[in-house]
Amino acid sequence: MIDRRTFNAALLGAAASVGVAQAQQQTTTNQQSLRLIATEEAFTTPEQLAAMSKLGGTGPIKDPDLNSIRNKARALDVESPLTRTTRALLDIGEQRIADMDRAGVAMHVLSLTSPGVQMLDVPTAHEVARVSNDRLAEAVRKYPTRFAGLASFAPQDPAGAVKEIERSIRDLKLHGLVVNSHTNEEYLDLPKYWPILEAAEALDAALYIHPRNPPAAILPFLDMPDAGTQLSSAMWGFQLDTGLHAARLIVSGIFDRFPKLKIVLGHMGEGVPFWLFRMDQRYKMRNAGEGSRTGRKLQRLPSEYFKSNFLITTSGVFWDDSLKFCRDAIGADNIMFAIDYPYEESSQAARFMNAAPLPPAELRKVAYENAERVFHIRRS
Amino acid sequence: MIDRRTFNAALLGAAASVGVAQAQQQTTTNQQSLRLIATEEAFTTPEQLAAMSKLGGTGPIKDPDLNSIRNKARALDVESPLTRTTRALLDIGEQRIADMDRAGVAMHVLSLTSPGVQMLDVPTAHEVARVSNDRLAEAVRKYPTRFAGLASFAPQDPAGAVKEIERSIRDLKLHGLVVNSHTNEEYLDLPKYWPILEAAEALDAALYIHPRNPPAAILPFLDMPDAGTQLSSAMWGFQLDTGLHAARLIVSGIFDRFPKLKIVLGHMGEGVPFWLFRMDQRYKMRNAGEGSRTGRKLQRLPSEYFKSNFLITTSGVFWDDSLKFCRDAIGADNIMFAIDYPYEESSQAARFMNAAPLPPAELRKVAYENAERVFHIRRS
Repeated sequence: MIDRRTFNAALLGAAASVGVAQAQQQTTTNQQSLRLIATEEAFTTPEQLAAMSKLGGTGPIKDPDLNSIRNKARALDVESPLTRTTRALLDIGEQRIADMDRAGVAMHVLSLTSPGVQMLDVPTAHEVARVSNDRLAEAVRKYPTRFAGLASFAPQDPAGAVKEIERSIRDLKLHGLVVNSHTNEEYLDLPKYWPILEAAEALDAALYIHPRNPPAAILPFLDMPDAGTQLSSAMWGFQLDTGLHAARLIVSGIFDRFPKLKIVLGHMGEGVPFWLFRMDQRYKMRNAGEGSRTGRKLQRLPSEYFKSNFLITTSGVFWDDSLKFCRDAIGADNIMFAIDYPYEESSQAARFMNAAPLPPAELRKVAYENAERVFHIRRS
Repeated sequence: MIDRRTFNAALLGAAASVGVAQAQQQTTTNQQSLRLIATEEAFTTPEQLAAMSKLGGTGPIKDPDLNSIRNKARALDVESPLTRTTRALLDIGEQRIADMDRAGVAMHVLSLTSPGVQMLDVPTAHEVARVSNDRLAEAVRKYPTRFAGLASFAPQDPAGAVKEIERSIRDLKLHGLVVNSHTNEEYLDLPKYWPILEAAEALDAALYIHPRNPPAAILPFLDMPDAGTQLSSAMWGFQLDTGLHAARLIVSGIFDRFPKLKIVLGHMGEGVPFWLFRMDQRYKMRNAGEGSRTGRKLQRLPSEYFKSNFLITTSGVFWDDSLKFCRDAIGADNIMFAIDYPYEESSQAARFMNAAPLPPAELRKVAYENAERVFHIRRS
């Protein structure tokens, strides 16, 4: 299904590094440092890149992020050197582990880089998810103290997604799930996606909702051709879409239906922690003063769902003020360390975590204990 | 231009309370309390309601917020009793002052309720802004220790808006300006709106960007007919739009062009304080690693503009954790007390402010000193 002839020797060589056996499985070099489990660390596979390179015909894709990914994937066809980022994404072996050691990071919880397989046709999406999950499980088996993994799936076919989720968690022993916000401009609160949420809850597999850019209708409002920088992607668009996704899940009532479902949000919770008071306040006012406008009621307040059904991570936000606020707002049990490798600097993230202004017991929770609990990571 | 015959006697009576002279000009009843200047307090006028009642023909308006406002305004035509909210909005006299006294609020900085005049045709918008500013100035003259006012204008005609801004600040002695986020789905960073920003800077008139719902293309993503509550308006949509507006202003470079321009954001800064680290981080990465994608550069980092050109207020967010975070992130000089009367409870807001976990000197800044400085309010 995937045409591997489009890949040159350099690409295949880089991907094959998974198979290189001599990578050291040492723990962090600095014994004074905290054990750090980084929970939003990206990788790619030749199969994902091949599928991405075929997207959208010859013209530009509207989403600047997809456009850039597609163009990078295509560049690999014409013998151009791999970019540093693509090389880092392809490596789930010794090069990545060396980078982790330099920064003092014990473990990466790996996930297929955004936007995963969600923009592919259904058969290709299933195939890329399946092969990527196999590659991921292989890396975890080879380096069980250094890698854990979140399984990809194709929400555009919920029934097929459930099968791949079950295979990934039961057979491949992966540690959780990852999805990249909307799928064909739809969010996971819609009933057609409930089988996915049901499976995640039944398997006790936490679902990491990673960002992608908002739907096409929203992108023009982020477009600023004459500005000092763009607002798409990590500058603003990612959180606009993923925060909205989380807000939809909260008010939709799905946590009344799936009360043990665990959702993970990166980037200190995609802004949602900042809005918990106001969501509660407005929810109480709407349902008291004028009665529910929809006739349905949530069993709990928005902030209560957030505290019981969500965890947040520090990916890309290495900021004491924000960490302290989130700890006050939702508690240290609900925050996990993350870097967002290779898009962010591991050493900056590790310095932030080691020096974070939390009591030691809370620091351990954020640095690794919560990740071990939520992703069922056992130390060997 | 405005057909006043559509208003019944009750409405005109309520509006006429501005003219009632016997309202007490007492200060707060509790001498132990802080002086409180509330900076995002809404009012309406018969003229605004009349114009709103004519919006959109007979069908529903897409924006649920506009729809509700239009329908409330229309209800006044058929002799229905005024709602509590509409009655409160229409009063900029003794009833409002009595409410302020009950809560221990010294002063309201008044602004025409959202969405102001921005959805009206140009002649009607100018007329409603002019009459509303006149009414506002009259109330301020009558109760100079209890009311200050922000002038409305019609951004859909920038040249006419500048004239009304100049008249309001120079002649009417109003204390600043208010706009309700987007105008015809455009944001103030576009060059056509620069004359408005230039006038605001030249007159040292701070511009309060009050929320409204996002553009029509975004509304379907907020629509959840089967959910426990809606995500439009104050639940999520307001901050989505106003936060985006602020982010656009920051990266557009307009603060390099108008370095003394002051923008005020409600609701603890519409989420922007939460994103300052990430905006700086991504801005630095884009402009270092791959160079600016646009060829233009900002003179400063996004967070630096936010700290020098923005103030935030507490409207609708009476939450210690959030206040502490914002104080750490942007400093106590940049935060002002606000309630969002009559949509929020004055007594809850006042209790929050009086008990806020800040040192006394910082508490005074937030409670009233910053508002006196930014809005040029002199105590008599």
